[in-house]
Parts: sequence; structure tokens; C-alpha cells
Amino acid sequence: MNAPQHVVHGTSPERQIDEVVAAYVRAADHRDGRAMAALFTDEAVVEIYYTGDGEPRLLGSVRGAAAIGQAVAGMMAPHPPRGWSHHTTFDHIVRVEGDTATVDVQFLVYNVVGAAEPEGGWPPGASGAQGTITPIESGYNRTRLRRSGDRWLITEHVISHDLPYAFPQG
Amino acid sequence: MNAPQHVVHGTSPERQIDEVVAAYVRAADHRDGRAMAALFTDEAVVEIYYTGDGEPRLLGSVRGAAAIGQAVAGMMAPHPPRGWSHHTTFDHIVRVEGDTATVDVQFLVYNVVGAAEPEGGWPPGASGAQGTITPIESGYNRTRLRRSGDRWLITEHVISHDLPYAFPQG
Amino acid sequence: MNAPQHVVHGTSPERQIDEVVAAYVRAADHRDGRAMAALFTDEAVVEIYYTGDGEPRLLGSVRGAAAIGQAVAGMMAPHPPRGWSHHTTFDHIVRVEGDTATVDVQFLVYNVVGAAEPEGGWPPGASGAQGTITPIESGYNRTRLRRSGDRWLITEHVISHDLPYAFPQG
Repeated sequence: MNAPQHVVHGTSPERQIDEVVAAYVRAADHRDGRAMAALFTDEAVVEIYYTGDGEPRLLGSVRGAAAIGQAVAGMMAPHPPRGWSHHTTFDHIVRVEGDTATVDVQFLVYNVVGAAEPEGGWPPGASGAQGTITPIESGYNRTRLRRSGDRWLITEHVISHDLPYAFPQG
Repeated sequence: MNAPQHVVHGTSPERQIDEVVAAYVRAADHRDGRAMAALFTDEAVVEIYYTGDGEPRLLGSVRGAAAIGQAVAGMMAPHPPRGWSHHTTFDHIVRVEGDTATVDVQFLVYNVVGAAEPEGGWPPGASGAQGTITPIESGYNRTRLRRSGDRWLITEHVISHDLPYAFPQG
Repeated sequence: MNAPQHVVHGTSPERQIDEVVAAYVRAADHRDGRAMAALFTDEAVVEIYYTGDGEPRLLGSVRGAAAIGQAVAGMMAPHPPRGWSHHTTFDHIVRVEGDTATVDVQFLVYNVVGAAEPEGGWPPGASGAQGTITPIESGYNRTRLRRSGDRWLITEHVISHDLPYAFPQG
């Protein structure tokens, strides 16, 4: 039994496609380039747009499962100590036509930063989770998929950000 | 092929009803009164309550698909420049009985405001999405639907806000 | 008709399990120990971990449906006036094997605090929902379930918090 982790056994194609999205967000949050690459076809294209100011503006694109996996490791910042992220998706709209499909989701990304416990322990008044959770990105993902045996692979993935994006210079 | 955009081809009634919710939140965020109206019956009722302080308090109601669509355009503030919203829903509970159904969801609404890029570009230290994403509303939506051919239409939609609501005066 | 509220009539086991999660978050937010207990087997185990700093660290555990229900009432703080919470879940991954199943979800918990309306009403500039909605907890829940007649009951529920946790002293 060495089936890849992303094989999906849902009872409907819609459900299988929801779970490709679920695997995608986990790969992003775990900065797991290999798991991410396994979700895409070799010719897949990822395009990233900023759409919050009128016409969509292309921020970047990546082609091919291997490059997409490498981008997760190379372009996404590693989590700092006690840090994590949650890419979350909502209100999926799935359309299946034979062996191809589309899925449209809303997304929000949260930045999670845990507080460092003081040497002598938390202060007397402290109670509950210690740290901050901040929504930092939002938008829509529109994805095309193709059935490949008992799996669905992403052929096109368009990320539309509501917020403008600054790239570090230097 | 001029099928309306909200026709749903999911494999189960539960899934079809999830996608009515998905169409509802997109119509709200796009301030698309026509798309919103198309989800309701002509006699549908929307009721909005504040439920955070003991007994539910009725804030307002609207009757009929046309009026509901007009309310989206007339009562929801237009997005400012670089602004957007996300009405998001979670943890659906769907009950289908023949040609009627109910769906109970949790909701959160986010206000998204993009930063304006300075004339000379983002400052050297800037990295990532520029702007703020703030949760501004939360609660539960409880919705009744009726099957109409191969579609589900909303007959009753009860919005229960956790937070009290102030209406602009003047 | 006195069927318990958590009986689920979804068309697929995956859907039924989604709705166990939906019932779980509602029981948590309503501080409804009885509704919570009804979701678990008598021998069920809940384990709570902090996972944000390397190795998972066990924060606590509870065994048995009755004790789990009592923990909801006894360990979760009651909502203050105009206060509420939303335990929300995203991107479910469900695996069913005969009469057992697992579900893996992302979660976020929001703290909702309504503003108190001033004696003379909201100030002239006030518009929209009045109060704050703050994400305070996040992480993953991994749950095992067993089919029992036409229901699924939780046998094991592992909560993994991203943020460290302080317990009130005294």
C-alpha cells in the first residue's frame, strides 16, 4: 500500500474535487512542494492576478507540476518559530463535464504567530490561546481539472487576489 | 445555451443546496441584484434579526425576489476603490424532504480594503499583500427552499446577526 | 417524532460525517454539553495538543461521552453579555472504510463581542454591525468515527492547536 496521499475515494466527482482543494491548501500550509506538485499535470499553469483595482493585473505565473512544487518551497516564506498559516476555502462551486471539471472557491489566508512563553511561565491573568491570528490574503481561486484514472489533476489554477501585492526588492 | 448562471448540476440535492448558498454569497459580494433575485421565489421573505442580546430583535424584512434583488443594490454599500467583501459560510446542515429543504449555515463577512500603492512604488521593506481584511459581521443563516424543476429556489431566508446593528441616520 | 437533533439524513457517508462536524461546532458555540455528548461513544477519547513548537505537547484529555459533555459546560467559559463564539471548519478530508471513518479539518475559532448601545442610541456616524470579531484559536481536528445504526459517532477526537495555551491559575 504505497498509494500517494492525495488519492481521493469520495463518492462523487464533486466531492473528489473538493478534496483536491483540501489537499492543495494543506500542501501550501505545510510548504510541501512534493505534495503540491502531485496535484498538477506536467503542463499545468498557475496564474496569479491582482483584481482589486479594475482590470486584472498579472503578478506572476508558473508552468508545470515540478516548477509549481518548487515555487511552494522557493517563493513562500518558511514559517517562523511558533508560526503557521491557514489557507482556507469557502463556498465551492464545482462543475463536472465528463473527464474535465472546474471549481471556483473563495479563499482567505491567515497568518498565525504564537507568543513565546516567558521563562517563569504565563503571567497570572493569562488564559486561553496566546498569540495572534491575522487574515492577510483573500480572493478567489478558479481551477480546471482533468480526470486521470481514479484521480483529478489540476490543469489550470488562477489565483485572484483582492489586495495589491508587493514583492521584496533587492 | 443561455441557462442562468445559478443552475446547479450537483449530484445530490444537498450539494445543489450548498451551491445555492455559494451563489448567494457571490451575488452579495458582487452587489449583483439580478443574480440575487434569481435565487428567490416571487413570494420569498428575507428577515434580518439581531440575536446577540437575549430575544431575537427584528431589524428588517424584504418580500419578493424583485425587492430582494433591489435591496442588494440599494441597501448594501458599494465597494470603495480597492475595496471588496467576502460573505463566507461554514458547516452547512442541510435537510431535504421531497421538494422542500432547509439549510443552516454559520457565516462571517469580511471587509477587504487594499492599500494604495505610493507614487514611487511600495517601500523597500514591503512584502506580500498590502491592505487589511477585517471580519465585520457574523451569525447564522437559516434558509428554506423549494424545488422548482431542476433548481432549488429560496422561499424564506432568516439572517441572525450576533452583533447589534446601527442604521445611518438622516 | 422525537428523533435526536443530530440524526443525519445525508445521501453519502462523507456528507453525514461533515454534518457530525457541523453539529460539533454548534454544540461548542452553544455550550450545549448534552448535544456534544450525544456525538461521542461512551469510550470516546478527546485529546488536545499544542503543535506550534516542534513536538506535539499534550494539553489535556477527556474520556467518555458524559465527561466530554460536562467539559463543554465546565471548561469552556460562558459567553458574556452580547458575546458569542464561532467554531468554524474548512477543507474537510473524509475517508470512509466500511463502518469506520476519519475526518481531518482545519479550524478557526472567533470571539464575538457586541458593543453596548448607548442610552441615547448609536452615535450619528455609526453604521453597520457594532462590535468586534477576533480569531483567537486555529489548528486541525482529526477525528475517528464509527457507524452505529444510521448514525456516526465519534470514537477519537484530536484537537491540534497552532497557538500555545495558558490555563488560568488559582
